[in-house]
Amino acid sequence: MALIFVTSNRHKFEEVGDIATRLDIEIERDDIGPVEIQADTLEEVASYSAKEAAAALKRPCFVEDAGLFVKPLNGFPGPYSNFVFRTLGNDGIIKLMNGKTDRRAEFRSAVAYCAPNEKPKIFSGKVEGTLTTSVRGKQGFGFDPLFVPEEGDGRTFAELSTSEKNRFSHRARSVDSFLNWFKEVNG
Amino acid sequence: MALIFVTSNRHKFEEVGDIATRLDIEIERDDIGPVEIQADTLEEVASYSAKEAAAALKRPCFVEDAGLFVKPLNGFPGPYSNFVFRTLGNDGIIKLMNGKTDRRAEFRSAVAYCAPNEKPKIFSGKVEGTLTTSVRGKQGFGFDPLFVPEEGDGRTFAELSTSEKNRFSHRARSVDSFLNWFKEVNG
Repeated sequence: MALIFVTSNRHKFEEVGDIATRLDIEIERDDIGPVEIQADTLEEVASYSAKEAAAALKRPCFVEDAGLFVKPLNGFPGPYSNFVFRTLGNDGIIKLMNGKTDRRAEFRSAVAYCAPNEKPKIFSGKVEGTLTTSVRGKQGFGFDPLFVPEEGDGRTFAELSTSEKNRFSHRARSVDSFLNWFKEVNG
Repeated sequence: MALIFVTSNRHKFEEVGDIATRLDIEIERDDIGPVEIQADTLEEVASYSAKEAAAALKRPCFVEDAGLFVKPLNGFPGPYSNFVFRTLGNDGIIKLMNGKTDRRAEFRSAVAYCAPNEKPKIFSGKVEGTLTTSVRGKQGFGFDPLFVPEEGDGRTFAELSTSEKNRFSHRARSVDSFLNWFKEVNG
């Protein structure tokens, strides 16, 4: 039976699917739209959603929540990256960062896996980098065109293919920890 | 028995208290910290919180959620005004509005009242205005120093006393509708 990934984001599903395939795990997408809470950490948001989703589906499932945390903006847009992307877009972040010399940011990801009536299990991942002063690249989604990962070759996340991004992205790290744990537990 | 207002914000409690006193209704503050969800409307956020709070307290209670919706920023910061104020502050909004000729914004408020195991009842209020290019005034809280209500005399919300602000604020409108309804229903 396929493992259920609850998400409305097809880009996320593609990235997670790429990792699952390499680990020989079959995943299936469900767009049930669970409640997302307002909280300062992704772990709290994902944990609540996974619990809600597992209760509604009556089956084990996982969710993934991610965000861009900009150091000189005190962690903005953080857990509200989706809303901020929809309202301000990349241009808003560029404007807010105008004139800032400290351009450090990190992408963070939290996976929460939950079976009905159980406590969610959490897996976190992050990647450090810097913000560009203009958008670069057309792949990925959200703030990817602004983010240059420290471990890369200077390209933004939006200039990398899915499999290249999956070599060191925040999401690859949380999902990889989760799926390896899942595989071990479920033989 | 006093009516319970669930809030962690003492400024809100002061504003709501001023209105309640005029209507001869006794209110009491409870800082239970109910779950707040991520949603595009304040009504959805307040409704969910009121239901959670009433269930936890086992008593009827109300919550109030408010936000600044900036027209040329597509409704940003909206339901996440609190987080945005904590991370970007007034300076962030000033920076995002830099160079914009359309400076229209509105403050919105939603009150949700709920008794245990009942459906929440919602009351909305809003006030239209424009954004200044620098902070003005020390009263109120949040984005008040940037907001000049259309119906006022050119002063920002932070340049008005609580009773002046309560003459036409978004919160005064939602709370006034609610408390008048409450008084009528409860004799």
